Amino acid sequence: MESQQNNSQFKVVGRPVRLRDGLEKVAGRAQYAANVPRPGILHCRLLLSPYAHARISALDTGAAEALTGVVRVVTAADLPPLPPTSRHRLLLARDQTLFVGHPVAAVLAESEATAEDALDLIEVEYEILPAVTTIEQALAPGAPLVWPEGPPGGAEEAAAHGADVGDEETSATPSNISHTAHLSRGDVAAAFAEIERAGGAIIQRTYHTPVVHQSYLEPHATVAEVDRLAGTVTLWTSTQAQFYVREEVADVLGLADSDVRVIPTVVGGGFGGKFILTEPLVALLAELGGRPVKLVLTRMDEFLNANPAPQGRIEVKAAAMPDGTLHAIQARLLFDAGLYPGTPGGIGGFLLAGYYKCPNLEIEALEVFTHKLSTGAYRAPGAPQATWAIESTVDDLAHALGVDPLTFRLKNVVDAGDENPRGKEWPEIGLRRCLETLAAHPAWEAARAEREPNVGWGLAIGGWMGGLEPASAVCMLNRDGTLSVKVGAVDLTGTNTTLALIAAEVFGLAPERVKVYTVDTEQGPYAGATGGSKITYTVGGAVLAAARAAHRQLLDVAAEQLEAAPEDLEVLDGFVGVRGAPDSRRSLAEIAASTMQFGGRYPPIFASASEANTTQAPAFGAHLARVRVDPETGAVTVLRYVAVQDVGRALNPAAVRGQIQGGVTQGLGWALREQMIFDEDGQLLTASLMDYALPKVADIPPQGIETVLVEVPSPEGPFGARPVGEPPVIPVAGAVANAVRAATGVRATALPISAQGLWAQLHAAT
Amino acid sequence: MESQQNNSQFKVVGRPVRLRDGLEKVAGRAQYAANVPRPGILHCRLLLSPYAHARISALDTGAAEALTGVVRVVTAADLPPLPPTSRHRLLLARDQTLFVGHPVAAVLAESEATAEDALDLIEVEYEILPAVTTIEQALAPGAPLVWPEGPPGGAEEAAAHGADVGDEETSATPSNISHTAHLSRGDVAAAFAEIERAGGAIIQRTYHTPVVHQSYLEPHATVAEVDRLAGTVTLWTSTQAQFYVREEVADVLGLADSDVRVIPTVVGGGFGGKFILTEPLVALLAELGGRPVKLVLTRMDEFLNANPAPQGRIEVKAAAMPDGTLHAIQARLLFDAGLYPGTPGGIGGFLLAGYYKCPNLEIEALEVFTHKLSTGAYRAPGAPQATWAIESTVDDLAHALGVDPLTFRLKNVVDAGDENPRGKEWPEIGLRRCLETLAAHPAWEAARAEREPNVGWGLAIGGWMGGLEPASAVCMLNRDGTLSVKVGAVDLTGTNTTLALIAAEVFGLAPERVKVYTVDTEQGPYAGATGGSKITYTVGGAVLAAARAAHRQLLDVAAEQLEAAPEDLEVLDGFVGVRGAPDSRRSLAEIAASTMQFGGRYPPIFASASEANTTQAPAFGAHLARVRVDPETGAVTVLRYVAVQDVGRALNPAAVRGQIQGGVTQGLGWALREQMIFDEDGQLLTASLMDYALPKVADIPPQGIETVLVEVPSPEGPFGARPVGEPPVIPVAGAVANAVRAATGVRATALPISAQGLWAQLHAAT
Repeated sequence: MESQQNNSQFKVVGRPVRLRDGLEKVAGRAQYAANVPRPGILHCRLLLSPYAHARISALDTGAAEALTGVVRVVTAADLPPLPPTSRHRLLLARDQTLFVGHPVAAVLAESEATAEDALDLIEVEYEILPAVTTIEQALAPGAPLVWPEGPPGGAEEAAAHGADVGDEETSATPSNISHTAHLSRGDVAAAFAEIERAGGAIIQRTYHTPVVHQSYLEPHATVAEVDRLAGTVTLWTSTQAQFYVREEVADVLGLADSDVRVIPTVVGGGFGGKFILTEPLVALLAELGGRPVKLVLTRMDEFLNANPAPQGRIEVKAAAMPDGTLHAIQARLLFDAGLYPGTPGGIGGFLLAGYYKCPNLEIEALEVFTHKLSTGAYRAPGAPQATWAIESTVDDLAHALGVDPLTFRLKNVVDAGDENPRGKEWPEIGLRRCLETLAAHPAWEAARAEREPNVGWGLAIGGWMGGLEPASAVCMLNRDGTLSVKVGAVDLTGTNTTLALIAAEVFGLAPERVKVYTVDTEQGPYAGATGGSKITYTVGGAVLAAARAAHRQLLDVAAEQLEAAPEDLEVLDGFVGVRGAPDSRRSLAEIAASTMQFGGRYPPIFASASEANTTQAPAFGAHLARVRVDPETGAVTVLRYVAVQDVGRALNPAAVRGQIQGGVTQGLGWALREQMIFDEDGQLLTASLMDYALPKVADIPPQGIETVLVEVPSPEGPFGARPVGEPPVIPVAGAVANAVRAATGVRATALPISAQGLWAQLHAAT
Repeated sequence: MESQQNNSQFKVVGRPVRLRDGLEKVAGRAQYAANVPRPGILHCRLLLSPYAHARISALDTGAAEALTGVVRVVTAADLPPLPPTSRHRLLLARDQTLFVGHPVAAVLAESEATAEDALDLIEVEYEILPAVTTIEQALAPGAPLVWPEGPPGGAEEAAAHGADVGDEETSATPSNISHTAHLSRGDVAAAFAEIERAGGAIIQRTYHTPVVHQSYLEPHATVAEVDRLAGTVTLWTSTQAQFYVREEVADVLGLADSDVRVIPTVVGGGFGGKFILTEPLVALLAELGGRPVKLVLTRMDEFLNANPAPQGRIEVKAAAMPDGTLHAIQARLLFDAGLYPGTPGGIGGFLLAGYYKCPNLEIEALEVFTHKLSTGAYRAPGAPQATWAIESTVDDLAHALGVDPLTFRLKNVVDAGDENPRGKEWPEIGLRRCLETLAAHPAWEAARAEREPNVGWGLAIGGWMGGLEPASAVCMLNRDGTLSVKVGAVDLTGTNTTLALIAAEVFGLAPERVKVYTVDTEQGPYAGATGGSKITYTVGGAVLAAARAAHRQLLDVAAEQLEAAPEDLEVLDGFVGVRGAPDSRRSLAEIAASTMQFGGRYPPIFASASEANTTQAPAFGAHLARVRVDPETGAVTVLRYVAVQDVGRALNPAAVRGQIQGGVTQGLGWALREQMIFDEDGQLLTASLMDYALPKVADIPPQGIETVLVEVPSPEGPFGARPVGEPPVIPVAGAVANAVRAATGVRATALPISAQGLWAQLHAAT
């Protein structure tokens, strides 16, 4: 690890501290949704469709229901006939199945094993129907339509990850094209003609990315309990978005939001894949079953019917002047949405066109329906794919012009005041500072001096706009002199540890004197989903405001007790004292006790704040990878990895570095290992973690991921913080692919860069 | 029921609404502490001392521990040697037992039945020691000292019920006298001499009151779970005072307050008896047992070792001028504290001396230790006893002077500006208004016309100062347009229903659109114990302030959305509209949704408030009872009962009337039925509800308790509300006793006025 800047203006913020949820997780004590004990609980298992598209001509649950221990087998006929406007409202197949993995029936039994056994006893007759399972099939003339009566629902969830998604259009007449988005500037046709006249370089290429699964280790797990008399539902669920779950479950069950209580449990990984999935179904099952119901997906269920990142095809044509000035980018991004819309073509297109000053742009993004499982958000949705495409292209432009790739990027990257692809100005950003920092880093010198055969270095940039959402928070002083902070956001990435630092900084307290609680929707200060890299940035702002309000309340009470003016007081080490009068002080515990006693004359220190920050703070990084390619096998080994990232302010450098390391590791999965493979019938060939290759510790360079923190403070984030979680996954595939090209001269056009694929390319090239 | 004043200035407040917890209680769905399911829970039963004072010479738990299903038998030797400074810190007997019922050992077993069986297998050898079990024994020269090394602890809990307790003194040298309190004004000796010279009347008498048990139907019940790794404890407990429980459990276990979470469960009656009792012991047992522990007291445990109202002896001498002007009151109140201090002699003395303008006062209150179970608060602690004494005495003074008892009281009762016994001015109070209202009531006319033999009417007044304690509250707007209010006070008497009305009034919403939650100590806005009749008065103030703050936030957001100034907006029927422009309006649900969405520009409506109201609002009543005495048996039947009470503002008249009816009913228990009887060895003879006579429906007059609400708004209470819960129990014994005197000419000097006792008096009198 590199040392970081000294944040000497802060007492607490900027010093690395351990994540608070580490102990309970390491010790096996964290209570996940699957562990929630409810008296009389029923266990659920789902019967899944084996066909991509089929009519259900007969469905007999009699034998399954006769099995001892089975309480009920639920089919679509038992459920309200709700329009299946989104994946989580699809519930169970009614008449026909629309993808391999489409749930057909739900068994409720006294044990999970019994429910599993009962699946085999459900008799279903399927009549196979024509299906489209690839982008190309779906777009072919006369292709069967996935939604013959028009596409259902919208794209709320994709939007919840935070980029400006461009002008969206929904196709008017039924087709397999769901949405399209466009961005343009200047005149690309004229620009390419100009380059052809003037010399310079043009690169045109089509890039392919696979379906990649978020692969959280804890599967989706939900327990629901219905109180029929009160007309209320309680859910314990592994979600990143408890308020969204509440809203959707309430709507599906015909209840008011406040009649649904969602208690978010510890999340064993989400990465964008755990907004909502089975919760409405489980709530309905609990209502039907008359007892609490638990559904924990199996790993195979996860692969067959959750919501991984979509398959993509990205066509890019870009041109640069002889002097290395980027002149035009034309691109078309196609994403395979599967059954439901919401793929991140707009976000991907915006980023692909947005990193560089480029006078001529023409970007089209479209998403296509297929008879495949629906897709969802995965850490910076659309960005790793689009960034890999543009960073490969740009690298080749630089190479073609004989310009050093770092120099090329420094020449072209956007700065504050430049126009973004939507015609708005970029605010203060750290993209150039990241490149400059990398240029000064010893690794860059090593890269320039590299002479080892089959070894290459690759550079790529990437960034993320960051999500925004209003949030509230509560800060209160306890009788023991500690602070309690309450928020409505699930802690996925150590945010509760960071939020504690924010409040501790305001009070000048040791961080361990601040406890942070994620509360349920009933108790809750509101916060949006934990996604879009926005919790520290937005909820942190609410915590900062609440802590400052509580601090003012404290000074007001202390001022009366110490007979001083509030402005003459300071809080230090758990005491409020009069500045310059060291003996005149009272402990926070004493003051708190005076506000919590019979006949007390002072109000409790208890403050809330609500914030609606509407200013994005885009966060950029520059990554450098060193790889060796085995010419015999095509296998790529990552030898070194340096990630430079503008984090605005590293409130907890340990958490920030951890996020960067995790993001880079997932990026290595995109680059080298991960893909869900489907055959032509839409059958998944990689439905287990034996077949689906996650990056492992051995895939990380021996000395780990080197992180370098750049701090260009944002104007609105707490103490200058910027979004941190999503940016580090974005440049990785580009950096690795560029390193592979440097090592071999071969340009990968499909992810992952597998040994087989690269070996074939190497042999085709020689 | 009588009709009440029309509160036409309010939209919501002042209309009777049903209590919200009614349905879950009637349907058997309320989750009491005894129902809390915890995996691996151990059941606890306590072995109690059969002797008032004994040395434990041997204690063998071997046979009990050998019983199958017994996990552990805990004795004092297993517990930390904490000084037993209060009843709930006494834990288990160490070396000696100090009262009949003193816990000696705790069995932890897999079932309650096994724990019960194991009690018989514990072998204890006791060496009986000399004991004092009555006030008289305790004060006798040379009596054994209950605390030879000086008395432990203080009187916090008694103070938590709210009257000004006078100058307290703690005895300096070891004796059985715990505390004394004094109040004086003028010169009583000179005053009595003056009356003897001038004529007029002097009444001198000693009144006896028994130990009375709160007799909540749900016994004390606590579940505790210790997380050793995290160093935290969670308790689910039936308490009126979750924050006090947290503080005490934390202190006993050596933890910080914020490491203890107290989740208050539905309380099946408390009446002052459920502040804290077994919680520290159960938490220690859970720590020792390594598993969750549940302790539910049996009814016999409740009678033998909980904390009922103390036995009292009240000596009163009072004098009035020939014209009916009260001239002097001298009184001595002795309370039998049992093992621990905290009896309400100060409160009783204050009230006894406080209802009337009386120039000469001399009041002494003292409490005495005995080898009996410790005593605690019971609905208006000290007040029913002291009020019965003074109201009996005053009635006899009026009778002796031939003055009508209502006229006598109207002549003498205090008004705003009069000096109270502590030398402060009475604020605006409704005592005179209550008497005037009663004078105008048809029942008073009927009383004056009464001629039936063996039937009499009795009048008494009474009042309560009301407790004060700082409180916080939260008010938030939900996405469905409803409001959620969070408070830290347990709902014993319908307060959550009333708090909903307060918030609904501010927002002009239907009450059912407001939900009120009592949250646990971890979530918690702070509130003091639910006791002292203070929840609506103090927490209600915090709710009012929080609702008003949320309302301002709402108008600010709506003003932006409707492009209007906040001051031109009004909230009506769930919409915010521009005054005078009926089409320009948005629903609360729409506005809330706009504050809870991705990219939203408006902060969530979420407000908190903390209040420290330091102004008491004393609440008075005037009661009238009609009774028949059976001359053959001495049995008293209450034929009619009218309770007039100043409630300041009846926010929910249904709840207020319910409180008055419940209070009067418990007052009838004091007057006619309830007493715990001990023999000379301190053995309880009435340790079950077969032997201890609670008032039943048949003891209520056929047409119920008639309630008449007087509204003299308090300046600081929400919408003028005053304390309501405690006042109605206070005058009852006086009214009934005065009615008995009117029917029979006999003055009762001991409560309850039992048939046997009255028969004996009737026969002695004839």
